Amino acid sequence: MRPLDAAAAAAARARQDELLKPPGALGRLEALAIWLAGTSGDPRPQVRARVVVAAADHGVAAEGVSAYPASVTAQMLDAFLSGGAAVCALAREAGAGLLCVDAGVDDPGPAARAAESGALVRTGLRPSRSLLLEPALEVGEVALAVDTGRALAAAAARDGITVLVGGEMGIGNTTPATCLAAWLTGGDPAALTGPGTGLDGVGLARKRAVVQGALALHGPRIRGPLGALRRLGGGDLAVLCGLALGAGEHGLAYVCDGLIATAAAAVAAAVEPGLRPRLLAGHRSPEPAHDALLAHLGLAPVLDLELRLGEASGAVCALAVLRLACAAHDGMATFAEAGVAGPAA
Amino acid sequence: MRPLDAAAAAAARARQDELLKPPGALGRLEALAIWLAGTSGDPRPQVRARVVVAAADHGVAAEGVSAYPASVTAQMLDAFLSGGAAVCALAREAGAGLLCVDAGVDDPGPAARAAESGALVRTGLRPSRSLLLEPALEVGEVALAVDTGRALAAAAARDGITVLVGGEMGIGNTTPATCLAAWLTGGDPAALTGPGTGLDGVGLARKRAVVQGALALHGPRIRGPLGALRRLGGGDLAVLCGLALGAGEHGLAYVCDGLIATAAAAVAAAVEPGLRPRLLAGHRSPEPAHDALLAHLGLAPVLDLELRLGEASGAVCALAVLRLACAAHDGMATFAEAGVAGPAA
Repeated sequence: MRPLDAAAAAAARARQDELLKPPGALGRLEALAIWLAGTSGDPRPQVRARVVVAAADHGVAAEGVSAYPASVTAQMLDAFLSGGAAVCALAREAGAGLLCVDAGVDDPGPAARAAESGALVRTGLRPSRSLLLEPALEVGEVALAVDTGRALAAAAARDGITVLVGGEMGIGNTTPATCLAAWLTGGDPAALTGPGTGLDGVGLARKRAVVQGALALHGPRIRGPLGALRRLGGGDLAVLCGLALGAGEHGLAYVCDGLIATAAAAVAAAVEPGLRPRLLAGHRSPEPAHDALLAHLGLAPVLDLELRLGEASGAVCALAVLRLACAAHDGMATFAEAGVAGPAA
Repeated sequence: MRPLDAAAAAAARARQDELLKPPGALGRLEALAIWLAGTSGDPRPQVRARVVVAAADHGVAAEGVSAYPASVTAQMLDAFLSGGAAVCALAREAGAGLLCVDAGVDDPGPAARAAESGALVRTGLRPSRSLLLEPALEVGEVALAVDTGRALAAAAARDGITVLVGGEMGIGNTTPATCLAAWLTGGDPAALTGPGTGLDGVGLARKRAVVQGALALHGPRIRGPLGALRRLGGGDLAVLCGLALGAGEHGLAYVCDGLIATAAAAVAAAVEPGLRPRLLAGHRSPEPAHDALLAHLGLAPVLDLELRLGEASGAVCALAVLRLACAAHDGMATFAEAGVAGPAA
C-alpha cells in the first residue's frame, strides 16, 4: 500500500491556514482538500474521477432475499451501458467517467450487446452459489475477481485518475454484504440485516434467517478476510475489494458508496490495513450494517441524502463535494494576496 | 407570494415513480427535484442559480462581539469583487453567478473601486447603529434595503434564474442575527449565542451580554417582524429579507445559508408565511441559533459540512446537490424505456 504523501498534505494544510477565511471555517471542505493532497501527492489536488460499477448475480437470490427478480441484474447492466441508470446521470453531472464490469451476470445478453462498444469489462465469472448452502465463490474465482479490480485501478492510475469510486449492481447482494459486515465487525447478524431495496416484514425475517444461517455454516471455517470473501461474498464484492486494493497500490483515493461497496472496501482494509487512509465514505446508507462498517473503519460519511440505491450513487454525489473542496482550495486568495486583516490581536 | 405549482410538482413526482430505481431510493434527491418543479413550475426543472452577497457594517461591532476588526467587512467586499473569496471559488464550481450588494459598508473604497465594473449594487445605506444602545436601522433604511432585495429577485426572475441564494458579509453580524432568532423563536438568548467566526470564552460571554441587553432594551417595543428587523437587524439582513420576499413574489426557489441568511429569511417568512414552501436550508451551521431557526421554519438542511463562514458558502455547496437531483430527474430512463422489470409480485 502506498502511504499518503505527508509533505503534500502538510503543504495543503499550510495553504488552508493562509486562505481568506477564519481558520477551519470551511470545515469538512478543508479536510477533504488536505486528504486528497495526501492521496494524490499534489498540494493543489484535482478531482479526476472514474466510477467502476461491478454487476453480478448471486445464488442467494433464490432464497427470496430481494424484492426484485434476479433478471433485473442483467437488465440494469444494460441500462448502465446505455446511460439511463441513476449512476449514469449522476456521473455525467459530477464529471466522472463510468466503466462497467460483468463480475458474474447470469444472462449473457448484456455482454453480447456490449461486445462492440468495449464499455464492459468481462471476467468470465459465473454467478455466485448460495452462501446459505455452500461457499459463494471458489478460490480461483476470488483471485480472478480481485485481480480484475486491481488491474482496473492500475489502468486508472495510468490514465491520470486521482479518485476511484466503486459501485455495484446485483439482485440479492445486500445479503452477502451484511454477512461480511457481521463477520468483520462481530456485530449481531439479525440486528445488522436491513430491508435492502424494499423488503417487507416477511421478506426481512427470511433475509435475517439466511444471514444467520450463512454465518452459522461458514463462520467457524473462515480463515482470514479473503476466506470470508470467498464463502460469504460474490463477484461484485470481490471485484470491488480488488479495486480498493488497487487504489492503495497505485496511490489513488477511493470513495466508498453504500453497504455493498463499503463491505468490499472493509475486506480490502482487513487484508491491507495500510489502505485505510485512502478510503472516504461518500454517503451514509440507511442499512444498519453500513453504520457498523463505517464505525469499524473509522469513517464519517460526507453526505446523508437518504439514498438506498447502490450503483455508486451516493459516492458520486460526494464527488461533487470533493470538487467544491478542491475549487475552494485552489481558487481562493490568501489573506496576503487579498490584503485583508487577520483576527484582532 | 406565488404558491408552488402543484401540477408541476405532481408531474415530477409521477416521473420519479417511473424512473429506473426502487420507489424512493434516491431519497432527498427525489424530494429536491420535486420541490424545484413546484417552485419553478417546470416538471423537469433546471438549476439556473444566482448568488447575492450583501455586505454591511454593524454598529454593534464596537462592543467587541467579533474576533475580527470591522475593517474586514470592506476588505472582504473587495475580495468578493475580485473573485478571491471562498464563495467566488465555490460559485464558479457550482455554476452560479455572483452579485454583491453594498448594504452599508463603512469604507467607501470598495464601492469606488467597483464603480467601473458594475458588479456591485449600491444602496447608499450607512452602517447600522449599535443595537445595544438604539434601534439598528431607521424605518426608511429598512424599506430601502428590503426594496433593494426585492428588486434583485425581480431582476433574477427576468433573467431566467430559477434558484436564488442569499449570503452575507459583515463583521459582528451573528449578533443581530442571534437577536432576531431569539425574538422569532422565543428561545433563550444566552443559549442561542454562539462563538461566530471564532470568539474565545471571554468574547462569547461579552456577546451573550450584548444579545441579552439588546433583547431587554428592544423586546418590549417591537411590533411585528419588520419592527424586529429595524431594531435588531442590519443592512445585510434587511437586503436578504427583501431578497427572500422577492423570491416568493417572483416564483423563485430560495436557498438559505447559515445563521444570518436564515434569520433574514425567517423574518421574511414571518412577514409572508406563504414564502415558506420556497425556502430550502442548504447547510447546517454550528451556531446554536441556526438550529432554532431551522426548527422554527420546519427546514432540514441538505448538508452538514461543518462550515462556519457565511458568504453563502454552505448554500452554494447545496446547489451542487440540487444539480445532481435535477440531473437524475431529467437524465434517467424510466422502467418502460429501459425494459427493466419492477419488483416481483
